[in-house]
Amino acid sequence: MSDVSEALELIKRGADELLIESALVAKLKEGRPLRIKAGFDPTAPDLHLGHTVLLNKLRQFQDLGHQVLFLIGDFTGMIGDPSGKNATRPPLTHEQIVDNAKSYEAQVYKVLDPARTEICFNSTWMNALGAAGMLRLASHYTVARMLERDDFSKRYAAQQSIAVHEFLYPLCQGYDSVAMKADVELGGTDQKFNLLMGRELQKDYGQSPQCVLMMPLLEGLDGVNKMSKSLGNYIGVDEPATEIFGKVMSVSDDLMWRYYELLSFRSQQEIGTFKEEVGAGRNPRDIKVLLAKELVARFHSTAAADAALAEFEARFQRGVLPEDMPEIRLLADAAGYPLSRALKDCGLTASTSEALRMIQQGAVRIDGERVEDKGTSLASGASVVLQVGKRKFARVLLSE
Amino acid sequence: MSDVSEALELIKRGADELLIESALVAKLKEGRPLRIKAGFDPTAPDLHLGHTVLLNKLRQFQDLGHQVLFLIGDFTGMIGDPSGKNATRPPLTHEQIVDNAKSYEAQVYKVLDPARTEICFNSTWMNALGAAGMLRLASHYTVARMLERDDFSKRYAAQQSIAVHEFLYPLCQGYDSVAMKADVELGGTDQKFNLLMGRELQKDYGQSPQCVLMMPLLEGLDGVNKMSKSLGNYIGVDEPATEIFGKVMSVSDDLMWRYYELLSFRSQQEIGTFKEEVGAGRNPRDIKVLLAKELVARFHSTAAADAALAEFEARFQRGVLPEDMPEIRLLADAAGYPLSRALKDCGLTASTSEALRMIQQGAVRIDGERVEDKGTSLASGASVVLQVGKRKFARVLLSE
Repeated sequence: MSDVSEALELIKRGADELLIESALVAKLKEGRPLRIKAGFDPTAPDLHLGHTVLLNKLRQFQDLGHQVLFLIGDFTGMIGDPSGKNATRPPLTHEQIVDNAKSYEAQVYKVLDPARTEICFNSTWMNALGAAGMLRLASHYTVARMLERDDFSKRYAAQQSIAVHEFLYPLCQGYDSVAMKADVELGGTDQKFNLLMGRELQKDYGQSPQCVLMMPLLEGLDGVNKMSKSLGNYIGVDEPATEIFGKVMSVSDDLMWRYYELLSFRSQQEIGTFKEEVGAGRNPRDIKVLLAKELVARFHSTAAADAALAEFEARFQRGVLPEDMPEIRLLADAAGYPLSRALKDCGLTASTSEALRMIQQGAVRIDGERVEDKGTSLASGASVVLQVGKRKFARVLLSE
Repeated sequence: MSDVSEALELIKRGADELLIESALVAKLKEGRPLRIKAGFDPTAPDLHLGHTVLLNKLRQFQDLGHQVLFLIGDFTGMIGDPSGKNATRPPLTHEQIVDNAKSYEAQVYKVLDPARTEICFNSTWMNALGAAGMLRLASHYTVARMLERDDFSKRYAAQQSIAVHEFLYPLCQGYDSVAMKADVELGGTDQKFNLLMGRELQKDYGQSPQCVLMMPLLEGLDGVNKMSKSLGNYIGVDEPATEIFGKVMSVSDDLMWRYYELLSFRSQQEIGTFKEEVGAGRNPRDIKVLLAKELVARFHSTAAADAALAEFEARFQRGVLPEDMPEIRLLADAAGYPLSRALKDCGLTASTSEALRMIQQGAVRIDGERVEDKGTSLASGASVVLQVGKRKFARVLLSE
């Protein structure tokens, strides 16, 4: 019983919502390995830390002895966008799906335990359903309830078109849970409707309905928007060790605690101790270094983590970085933000012309690296430390 | 060109609506045999004259040299009612479908020309679509437009549930037209939405859209409700010759002209002449006899038609039936209408007790046949001639 409540505490860590807790407790008490489902897009994966929030949670289930069913949604992937309106979503070939699955494995096994992971493809059971099975599946839900889904109801009210096949996608996702006999499904909070569909259909098919665990979306380096490739505010799982290290070091102290909760495997107790120490005056930078090392070690190796720290410290010359740096948020557009203007707007120079002169003199650094080009721009979504001369520093967050 | 306009006139005879006439003219001008589609329910057929309105129209197309595609909707028939709510619509087995198809052939070839008829089963192409194909098919139409269909919009407004698969049925019917490359589809006016779906999908699939010819629903013997087995106001294609003959003879003069238009193969010109003759004083009963003979000959034989006429005349003793009989409509419930009450309500007897006495004395006849049982009831939907003694007659229509 104490085991179950400890397990429950671990499972709920960082989660937004668990449905239904009492049902999960009952399942945990059965003592068997539970079947934990999570669905992934079949397009070429290029995972960033945002994706690993879910993977970490899956790993925690594995550490508790449960079986992860890593579902690649190739059935719809091989259809693409059937309306043909979305040119960026062409149908994938079987070969591409296989390649993408391999690429997934290479990336996710940095977090997941291969021994307790089963890679599944929903085309297996969806194709077996046939046209008649799809029709029967569609009979399990009403149009009115489908239109209650948040995005459908908004689009319907706004007279934006909803194609009929869009009503079938949630049913397909729900049927996946039936075919997989899932005990628990993990997903983002934005997936709530589809996650609950699995429960509905499992009941219809005489199964015990899955529990649903919804994980939050991870904020990107800017601490505001969700981490995403298109916003440029991400840390990629496949990035070089020094990049990951430097990017982690660039986040604000508040965001660091958020990352600890969702990305670190340290216990809640350890993290609590860190918070107490910082409260008592310890430099949060030391704690950030521990997080940066943990993440680099996970995606590269412990040796790589040590090397990245050494390089990071060498670059900034230990002790040079002031403890209280101003943090300034600048609004960048898609084209970025000219460095010279940023230096002026942060108060590091009196004017852009002074800024340009300082760049020319070799007195300006970004994250410790000297800037050569007066035309340098800061990318939207970036979080960097700007430095003019030896004394003037500012941490700059570029949000869109 | 004169051929085409004559053909068009024949095609439009009795039809409620033709979409689009100019497109049909263009197709007729091509001079090739057009592909004429009509869909039929795969449940055990027991055709009545109401069904033959459509069959007659198909036959007219055949007489003009076109090919009839007689579609048996076995794909959905083999699914039954997937919601399981409708116990009266259980899924059919393949064997039942084959049996029903044979039964259809036996009945419809009394009207259709087998040489220009192709029996099709939509499971052929629907099963080949697969689950993915069904999803793609569903992408061709929007939820909003589907909800514009009359019965859907009413049910949605009344908060009656519409299951998602019900949105797929019109798409399946439309896709049938694509798979069959139909030039023209025939159907009832109540099928307009689904018939037009065929046009939409054919356009999407790069085909010339089918023309749509909507036939009216035939009124039953009561002249009010549509002919239907459940209302009891029908003439079955497989009924004995004397039954068909007697039932035709029982209809009102107005309904006779309607039946001429929709059920007779006589030309419009001949029918026009009949009307003129009746206008000039000819007994409409003579014209009704010609219709009764034509229909018995079609579903049995000319010899059977002659025999049925002879039997009919013997029963009524030529000349006994008055020319001007009162026509009285009585409202019957499902249990029928007691004969004794009907006799009184028609004014043939002064009271029900007199009516019962007359029955006991053997003075009451229904359609010329003596009634023995005082408890006799008239079925709802029936149209009969009641007779008391030698002089008192009334034609009674029992509507619900």
